[in-house]
Amino acid sequence: MGKNLTSREQDYSKWYNELVVKADLAENSAVRGCMVIKPYGYAIWEKMQAELDRMFKETGHQNAYFPLFVPKSLFEAEEKNAEGFAKECAVVTHYRLKTDEENKGKLIVDPAAKLEEELVVRPTSEAVIWNTYKNWIQSYRDLPILINQWANVVRWEMRTRLFLRTSEFLWQEGHTAHATRQEALAETMQMNDIYAEFVENFMATPVIKGAKTENERFAGAEETYCIEALMQDGKALQAGTSHFLGQNFAKAFDVKFATKEGGLEHVWATSWGVSTRLMGALVMTHSDDKGLVLPPKLAPIQVVIVPIYKSEEQLDQISDVANGLVKDLRAKGISVKFDNRDTHKPGWKFAQYELQGVPVRLAIGPKDIEKGTVELARRDTLTKEFVEMDGVVEKVVALMEEIQETLYHKAKNFRDEHITKVDSFDEFKAILKKKGGFISAHWDGTSETENRIKELTKATIRCVPFDRKEEEGICVLTGKPSSGRVLFAKAY
Amino acid sequence: MGKNLTSREQDYSKWYNELVVKADLAENSAVRGCMVIKPYGYAIWEKMQAELDRMFKETGHQNAYFPLFVPKSLFEAEEKNAEGFAKECAVVTHYRLKTDEENKGKLIVDPAAKLEEELVVRPTSEAVIWNTYKNWIQSYRDLPILINQWANVVRWEMRTRLFLRTSEFLWQEGHTAHATRQEALAETMQMNDIYAEFVENFMATPVIKGAKTENERFAGAEETYCIEALMQDGKALQAGTSHFLGQNFAKAFDVKFATKEGGLEHVWATSWGVSTRLMGALVMTHSDDKGLVLPPKLAPIQVVIVPIYKSEEQLDQISDVANGLVKDLRAKGISVKFDNRDTHKPGWKFAQYELQGVPVRLAIGPKDIEKGTVELARRDTLTKEFVEMDGVVEKVVALMEEIQETLYHKAKNFRDEHITKVDSFDEFKAILKKKGGFISAHWDGTSETENRIKELTKATIRCVPFDRKEEEGICVLTGKPSSGRVLFAKAY
Repeated sequence: MGKNLTSREQDYSKWYNELVVKADLAENSAVRGCMVIKPYGYAIWEKMQAELDRMFKETGHQNAYFPLFVPKSLFEAEEKNAEGFAKECAVVTHYRLKTDEENKGKLIVDPAAKLEEELVVRPTSEAVIWNTYKNWIQSYRDLPILINQWANVVRWEMRTRLFLRTSEFLWQEGHTAHATRQEALAETMQMNDIYAEFVENFMATPVIKGAKTENERFAGAEETYCIEALMQDGKALQAGTSHFLGQNFAKAFDVKFATKEGGLEHVWATSWGVSTRLMGALVMTHSDDKGLVLPPKLAPIQVVIVPIYKSEEQLDQISDVANGLVKDLRAKGISVKFDNRDTHKPGWKFAQYELQGVPVRLAIGPKDIEKGTVELARRDTLTKEFVEMDGVVEKVVALMEEIQETLYHKAKNFRDEHITKVDSFDEFKAILKKKGGFISAHWDGTSETENRIKELTKATIRCVPFDRKEEEGICVLTGKPSSGRVLFAKAY
Repeated sequence: MGKNLTSREQDYSKWYNELVVKADLAENSAVRGCMVIKPYGYAIWEKMQAELDRMFKETGHQNAYFPLFVPKSLFEAEEKNAEGFAKECAVVTHYRLKTDEENKGKLIVDPAAKLEEELVVRPTSEAVIWNTYKNWIQSYRDLPILINQWANVVRWEMRTRLFLRTSEFLWQEGHTAHATRQEALAETMQMNDIYAEFVENFMATPVIKGAKTENERFAGAEETYCIEALMQDGKALQAGTSHFLGQNFAKAFDVKFATKEGGLEHVWATSWGVSTRLMGALVMTHSDDKGLVLPPKLAPIQVVIVPIYKSEEQLDQISDVANGLVKDLRAKGISVKFDNRDTHKPGWKFAQYELQGVPVRLAIGPKDIEKGTVELARRDTLTKEFVEMDGVVEKVVALMEEIQETLYHKAKNFRDEHITKVDSFDEFKAILKKKGGFISAHWDGTSETENRIKELTKATIRCVPFDRKEEEGICVLTGKPSSGRVLFAKAY
């Protein structure tokens, strides 16, 4: 059947790559580092989008759209931001192709169509957006501005992996403008909380909320808050970030507002984003050696019904029952597919839906019709049972909640078991090698030490958790004093 | 108040540009030819997207996402398509900027980061998609493929106008693959019909369905079907197109499938799209000298409630009533805004919502509270009346339908009055000059004649209407025989 996956134990990275392709989520394209998001994968992304969009709107944000291109002069206006992205940006230099006279039929870049100013394909939109906000903001009455954009961005990556690191990816980027530092900080925190809520409630993926160290901060930000998740292989994955940009962009683009009191001040800014990277996190949190495992809240197909029959007559009888079930389940808001294709055998279908992570499978055969039963299989636990046809709808509805909860708790138990306190660098290295996960350790607060630890172990500080306790200690590397633990991990 | 618009009679084009900006739909950006779609404009686009997306999914299509970039070698694979777009495409040639040593702090394109193969920013995605479909299609069992993509595309335009012609625009592009010519033709027609249904039912804009002549066909298509609308200034606007691509792309990308009968054949293709251009059509179909007029089905705010008060006490009383109304209207699925800001006077608010085309305005003052009435104003007819508070919800609900209908019929009457049959070229020119609109005339069927008429009058053949009658006649320009009339017009 060509569905056999490399097991996670064998090669986690290979398992991931195979699974993403075989489950029809995405594939590599002919364009270096850019992916094709296939319909099944895109349907999951659409569900993510719908929930996030709702949460953004409920908190007063509106969507808008800004240009794909950033003229070089705007791109470089905020120095740190420019420095951070200059090394990985796609640059448009010409606006026309022409036929090569010396090589008939072939197209070449038309040298006569060189742009006066090069255009950077947006790696992020602060520059183009703040250049726009400049014209929108005069007075405190124009604030706050609470805008979100769903868009594609390009960051030229040398080593790419489907969803996790691609040259082009899809994301949303929020860009807000405020009258006070405090209000902007509150917005930064609110959006980080919204991300945490989404990832935990919908993706069933537990996260740790915290702040980035200077090393890991967004280029141009004063603070970066983040949510960090843990993958099954013990590596961390940054699932979302929310940045307090201070007045950096307002100063770079000269955006001032008249205050209520008659003064003139620079505007305070935030930006925040999550991307198709979340798809990678979803896959690596729950899936197993048989394929995807999807939380019901994000599954494009929540229930599949497979008929098992030998004759047309049997299929007719089964179809009657199945179509009734489809109708009843849909009435409960459940997305259900009745796969009555005669081109594929039940065994093939079972494997296919397992691979694609459909949470519940119902199989109906002639004996079930006789006995008024149905075989119900759960994808998350890989368990099967025969249940009475009467009441199966209620059972499935309840299962949606139960599976969602089960996945979350399983992931949370795994994550909690993989937070290890260490007090020496030997222990640090041993844990990192033996079980991975988050390492909770004292650190002296310097970038030098952080860099040195990264060189020695490849682990970085994922975050300074918001809920950490004050605790006197000494840095695992340098022995210098520390007032609290931070979380290290190798990361995607 | 800065809201005074140039009137349509004075300068239609100026009126349009001012209106789009002043009503907060969109504005020009710092990036040549690229627009910023502002939140209010984007909210209308989101409503369009939601309806179209639903219609696509109901007819079996799924969304997916393909790369923004098209490598030059793929871009040129289908010759006619390449030829059609080569002259207006943005080309990425480098993937990095670096600091200019001679000009400290300034960024320049890094000559060491030149791409081996240039990347074209997609002007349309046939090339990159058919290069992907090649791997997805082996057998008739893999067909049909029914995929849609929501995306941004770039066509380098020298003269741009907000929504109507911009270098970057947002659109959807459907790309389908079929086993037979007949099936692909049926899909082409189905999608053109869906566009017509959307534009008529939701935008309240009547359209004429027909086929393009060879001159106006999509580059690489065998047939282009279209829907043509008429703007208030007598110019036509192509609101959507659906292309039958024959086997052109399948041949260019070598996409063959094993037939049921054991043969091997090239796949048949369609593509179809509508874009943010529809926003321009919406504005130019219904709006007036006071601003936007929006059909209720696409209005982000369907009803606005404005309180008229002198004291806080009055505002409290009015708010009680207004909040009750908000609740009741929302329960009926109506989007309603209670604008109780004390920073703006009622007169300012009235003008603002008129400018932004909110279909119904309810004003409530102290006397209304006493008498149990409310002042109801319709944006489309600019009429006002006092109505009983009891029953206002039902009245508003009914008005949504009524306004939608009224707008459609008004636009349809205008359109119908602007289809003129002519039988001589003098008449052709006179009508075009005097009243514009569609000119129904005989044409000899040649591109030469079509081009000549365009040179002489700027009018092009908008379509060969599907519902035209066979009719013997002679071409208005050449006197050669013709078997039916086609529709000419000047067009956006």
